[in-house]
Amino acid sequence: MDLSDLRVNGERLRASLEEMAKIGATPGGGVQRLTLSDEDKRARDLFVGRLEEIDLEVTVDEMGNIFGRRPGKNDELPPVFSGSHIDSQPKGGRFDGILGVMGALEVMRTLHENNVQTERPVLIVDWTNEEGSRFAPAMVASGVWAGKLDRDWAYSRTDRDGKVFGEELERIGYKGSAPAKAWPFHAYYELHIEQGPVLESIGKTIGIPKGILCLHWYDVYIEGKANQVGPTPMEGRNDALCAAAEMILAVQSVPARMGGNMVATVGEIQNYPNSRNIIPDGVHFTVDIRSWDDHLAINAWEQLKIDFQAAAGKNGCPIRFEETWRVEHTPFAEKLVGLLAQKAEALGYSSHHMVSGAGHDASYMNMLGDAAMIFIPSIGGRSHVEVENSTWEDCESGANVLLHCMIESANEV
Amino acid sequence: MDLSDLRVNGERLRASLEEMAKIGATPGGGVQRLTLSDEDKRARDLFVGRLEEIDLEVTVDEMGNIFGRRPGKNDELPPVFSGSHIDSQPKGGRFDGILGVMGALEVMRTLHENNVQTERPVLIVDWTNEEGSRFAPAMVASGVWAGKLDRDWAYSRTDRDGKVFGEELERIGYKGSAPAKAWPFHAYYELHIEQGPVLESIGKTIGIPKGILCLHWYDVYIEGKANQVGPTPMEGRNDALCAAAEMILAVQSVPARMGGNMVATVGEIQNYPNSRNIIPDGVHFTVDIRSWDDHLAINAWEQLKIDFQAAAGKNGCPIRFEETWRVEHTPFAEKLVGLLAQKAEALGYSSHHMVSGAGHDASYMNMLGDAAMIFIPSIGGRSHVEVENSTWEDCESGANVLLHCMIESANEV
Repeated sequence: MDLSDLRVNGERLRASLEEMAKIGATPGGGVQRLTLSDEDKRARDLFVGRLEEIDLEVTVDEMGNIFGRRPGKNDELPPVFSGSHIDSQPKGGRFDGILGVMGALEVMRTLHENNVQTERPVLIVDWTNEEGSRFAPAMVASGVWAGKLDRDWAYSRTDRDGKVFGEELERIGYKGSAPAKAWPFHAYYELHIEQGPVLESIGKTIGIPKGILCLHWYDVYIEGKANQVGPTPMEGRNDALCAAAEMILAVQSVPARMGGNMVATVGEIQNYPNSRNIIPDGVHFTVDIRSWDDHLAINAWEQLKIDFQAAAGKNGCPIRFEETWRVEHTPFAEKLVGLLAQKAEALGYSSHHMVSGAGHDASYMNMLGDAAMIFIPSIGGRSHVEVENSTWEDCESGANVLLHCMIESANEV
Repeated sequence: MDLSDLRVNGERLRASLEEMAKIGATPGGGVQRLTLSDEDKRARDLFVGRLEEIDLEVTVDEMGNIFGRRPGKNDELPPVFSGSHIDSQPKGGRFDGILGVMGALEVMRTLHENNVQTERPVLIVDWTNEEGSRFAPAMVASGVWAGKLDRDWAYSRTDRDGKVFGEELERIGYKGSAPAKAWPFHAYYELHIEQGPVLESIGKTIGIPKGILCLHWYDVYIEGKANQVGPTPMEGRNDALCAAAEMILAVQSVPARMGGNMVATVGEIQNYPNSRNIIPDGVHFTVDIRSWDDHLAINAWEQLKIDFQAAAGKNGCPIRFEETWRVEHTPFAEKLVGLLAQKAEALGYSSHHMVSGAGHDASYMNMLGDAAMIFIPSIGGRSHVEVENSTWEDCESGANVLLHCMIESANEV
């Protein structure tokens, strides 16, 4: 057959996504499949069974990452691989992560049933604990695999109930013996939902991120003076929450003030003593800044520090900052990004060049070799919520782009 | 002797305040004497002993209110009485409440040692659970005594550990047999720290509140849309915390916008899901408005509703209000307010007419008969905190004003 006529089976992809969505299904139509939970174990067992059905060689490494390998004609060449994660947010959706795993499974099934022999070996992967919502941080097992995080440190992470990552991994039977250690690869692809509203709003099917935005996290602490609200006149108050309110609005407006290409968010706030009739004497809040332009993001923070000092001074509230975390933006391999655009066009799908605002396992792969991602539209841009949704047609289209990119890369010698 | 020469013993008043400050003393220099706790019991036992030393007739009523009675020449006439509360906030100060009890005790001791016979009987009172910080609401036992709250409902109140008010009252041995039921009185006085910065800032010794401000409590609920912050552009977000920030600033500015005489505060806020990288989809915050002018306070709320709707509309976040509690302002008896000013002047103390921003047991007394309060300066305006402080001289001055007002009222026939 002409390989260019090859297509995934959309119905089968849908069925495999629906089957997975039953594991940890929530009443609100979403999924709760926290990493290393019983639900994660059931989903992993199902996944491993599906890999064995199509004669993939299954390996579980010491971080619980699951690989399924399909030999190449030239089996010693570095492979092409693809995957994502089976775990979900608490009350998460039915597509985040699992689409990239079931999409890659559908590619493997399509290669299998059509007896497609690629030059290079092809692998599918499920990365353990991408979400980081049970055990922080996120993307921990791809990080260990990539040599960027320490295995024993990862093992020692605890959840809210004091349960330990390493023990939970063993409990569910997925502490494998293979070293969690990167091997050379030729290309890594990850199919994922966009998790934002852009593709839907412009009516495009395939999103092609040129890379992942930089990510800067800050923590701000404001000190006020607690007093009974009734007897304390407005003049001379040191209300930490009023100071925080001005700062939150400064964060909201900073992307426009810096000329655009950036998002800035206050997601978390704690107020003390948080009592209806006491003037707040302490506020902590977080700032999350993301941009393709690292310098622009840093300039925004410099601007915010000026804004914050002004608001602090006006309210007579001392302020303290912590520069908690900074990750630079990461461009994906231009060659793969170009190939994605070419394959989308050849398949007749509209596509859009964009950026990824969220981190993914692909971030770590991108540090080691050529990596790229394929996005499909998120309905209403919603993600990390039970109503997260995408159309079956878009899932199928994304898997077809993945299929043809993997074949192309796997036949490069 | 000429009664106008009579003065309290400032050293003795200081000693009794210092003695009480040891019971529940905190490392930070404050006091934690929660109502019906072991500390409250020890302080009550000490107090009752002091009443018996000067031959007062002690009565404990079924709410645990402690009365000490000194007969009048015309003992059937409605008495004059004064007091406040022994209980404190968690990590509260050494003056809030206890000054009014020890001040009245010092008045009784002065009358006793000088063999002053008043026409009317004179009483001292300790009201149970003024603070309401262990068992809500505040001022519960004076409220029951005044017939405004139900005794059995008060008994059924529980603290955070599930302990029950009625059982705790019995446990510490202060569930008395006298009915908690108001009897006619001629005048009620309450000496208290100001709990605000006004007297200190204008350099006056005695504050004479014309009454207690109205108190309006509201609850505001904002609904946003949760999304991953990275992939969601600023345009089109529905960020409930940004909407709340605008509303908090509207509350801060509303007193000035309404022309002054008012305080408005957001003391409490909850943000959901309160995660660093998720756009907030729900905020609840409280609004506390106080003014001498009930209509002005209601107009301020009407203005705030317009401001809130505007901020909600701008951020695309539906909003919901609850009008939780409204208490009208309460003017004290003009006759007593005038007498206070006259006695302060006669004693050579500077004084200032003002209002009380906080509620007190005097609020309930004021519903039944003539009541008034005497304020002394709070250093730095601080209260409900361990650093709460007042000078011993000001305590003595306040007690002298209380002494002469009580004598004058108690000799009216």
